[in-house]
Amino acid sequence: MQSSERSTHLQAHPTVSDCTERELIDRIRQRLAPPPAWLLVGIGDDAAVAEVERNRLEVLSVDALVEGVHFDRALTPPDAIGHRALAVNLSDLAAMGATPRLALLSMALPPAFPLADFDGVADGLSALAARTSTHVVGGNLTRTQGPLTIDVTVVGTVKPRRVLTRAGARPGDELYVTGFVGAARAGLDMLRSTHSTHPTHATHLPCVAQYQRPEPRLRIGSLLARNRAASACVDLSDGLADGARQIAESSGVGVTVQAGTLPIAPCAHDWFASRGCDPGEESLRGGDDYELLFTVRPRARRRLEALARHFDVPVTRIGVCTANRDALLVESPGGVSPTALPPGYGHFRPVGPGKVGGR
Amino acid sequence: MQSSERSTHLQAHPTVSDCTERELIDRIRQRLAPPPAWLLVGIGDDAAVAEVERNRLEVLSVDALVEGVHFDRALTPPDAIGHRALAVNLSDLAAMGATPRLALLSMALPPAFPLADFDGVADGLSALAARTSTHVVGGNLTRTQGPLTIDVTVVGTVKPRRVLTRAGARPGDELYVTGFVGAARAGLDMLRSTHSTHPTHATHLPCVAQYQRPEPRLRIGSLLARNRAASACVDLSDGLADGARQIAESSGVGVTVQAGTLPIAPCAHDWFASRGCDPGEESLRGGDDYELLFTVRPRARRRLEALARHFDVPVTRIGVCTANRDALLVESPGGVSPTALPPGYGHFRPVGPGKVGGR
Repeated sequence: MQSSERSTHLQAHPTVSDCTERELIDRIRQRLAPPPAWLLVGIGDDAAVAEVERNRLEVLSVDALVEGVHFDRALTPPDAIGHRALAVNLSDLAAMGATPRLALLSMALPPAFPLADFDGVADGLSALAARTSTHVVGGNLTRTQGPLTIDVTVVGTVKPRRVLTRAGARPGDELYVTGFVGAARAGLDMLRSTHSTHPTHATHLPCVAQYQRPEPRLRIGSLLARNRAASACVDLSDGLADGARQIAESSGVGVTVQAGTLPIAPCAHDWFASRGCDPGEESLRGGDDYELLFTVRPRARRRLEALARHFDVPVTRIGVCTANRDALLVESPGGVSPTALPPGYGHFRPVGPGKVGGR
Repeated sequence: MQSSERSTHLQAHPTVSDCTERELIDRIRQRLAPPPAWLLVGIGDDAAVAEVERNRLEVLSVDALVEGVHFDRALTPPDAIGHRALAVNLSDLAAMGATPRLALLSMALPPAFPLADFDGVADGLSALAARTSTHVVGGNLTRTQGPLTIDVTVVGTVKPRRVLTRAGARPGDELYVTGFVGAARAGLDMLRSTHSTHPTHATHLPCVAQYQRPEPRLRIGSLLARNRAASACVDLSDGLADGARQIAESSGVGVTVQAGTLPIAPCAHDWFASRGCDPGEESLRGGDDYELLFTVRPRARRRLEALARHFDVPVTRIGVCTANRDALLVESPGGVSPTALPPGYGHFRPVGPGKVGGR
């Protein structure tokens, strides 16, 4: 940024190519909360150095957002991209009952990526980091000839013997889900149909917000773990049907979901119905909700009910674990003619044409 | 892999698109060493869960390899890509004096990426992981419409008050480098000029090996830290000149490098000379060597000399830290007419046309 030519360019439409790696790192660093006392060496050395917490297990996860696969820049504002890049990782910690501690951020930036959008991504990520006490201790920036790619690694902690896995469910355990489902899938549909990051219909807003800025259920995950209220837990990154299958498979049980009990988000219900789709089926298959799906032993139901008064969103009982290994859907409790739960989707075998989003 | 059509395709030129994410994860998992006792939950849940080491600090780093920026698939065999993706991160741990413990692997895969190459990347990474006792505890796989992108996060440990940073050098401290420099830069040049992953000239082999499969100096970094032999340390990812500037800037000192003392790799010296280039200048600027550059207090010199008998490569004294803030190059100790150290290079302002590689 020394030549006058570059300065002129900067005032017009600056991109990340107008900055050195160090200048870009500084733009992120300026947005972060002050470093905590346990961080002995932060951004700027070969690696970060942190004191560890005594009497805690560490919980680690990495997840990537790739433009054109997990988000479309035409439909997701920069700060929502930054928010989601961290949120999808914090959701993994929530599903383990862990409390977040630190994150590392690795971004591959296309040369033409606008500097204002880079700042927006950093804003969205740092705001969620500050709000969840997640300190960004280091990272890496590189250029790429491909799409914007954001990798976030998170490390959290949990007390020994309090960790929630997918593998603890037993036959008879009841299946619960936090919040509402289907909203993120509906929100993405709405964004696509309006070709705008900000649809104007007020009825769309809750679904669009759920897609663009999912809220990781850290508080609920932590309360479930600390109080031993859940026997297994998973987050709904790939949809409710997929999550139920994950718990069933890891725990060696079957699962039966009661379609009539699904807490479908009202905005999603109206949207899917208006398009001639089955709201229940769409909500079961749709990913990106980042709610928690968990199982509860019958004798722990009262404990959960007492605990749920402290939750920030409702929880709903939607099914039960069974001794056989089937993953089934019935219309109502004790309902007849069950059908197989619809499949989730994978990244390498897309479910349909034009599929973007989902993890 | 159920339809006969797919099976036929698989037998011809299978790509990662022929597999589900889970099948690809299994291909990695099969190559890993058995999980250590401290790993309570490994690959397959929302996150990994690990016991922490008592009385240790944690050292964390993330680094990415992007095809077309850090490597060229035409010049780097798949197993070398996997090796480098982990090695560049372990080198960061070495520079902090840390011992590696675990890694998380995040890959964005182009749909046409051959399955055999995917296996090769996993082979190279897992072999280095096993050899350095680094356990891959989790990761993420996604598709991308862009280049192959590999993000690795590593976590290591170091005893309190033994960590090496860039900031500990004082005027009068002497500057040392491990091994030889210039080889990786020369190796990359050789690969480009022959357009082959396996140049046939025997004299090329040491340089090509240094570029394709750098050896992180974990043992030396750990010995320097445990014995308090070094006052500051950095790895040479972006070249020796850049590393010297990093130490000087972080420590608030100047640095003078003696050109005549540089341990230029013989294969690099011959190569650069044959091309009419100055071997010293090329070796100062060239990145990817992944040697350690460190400073030693004058009174610790004997301790270093005793320690160096246990090193697996030689160390060479190449300069000194000064009270002024200049980064200078002189021909010999006490030499006249010093010149400024050449600059390193950044990813966002490439030094020259066709620049590929370097971090």
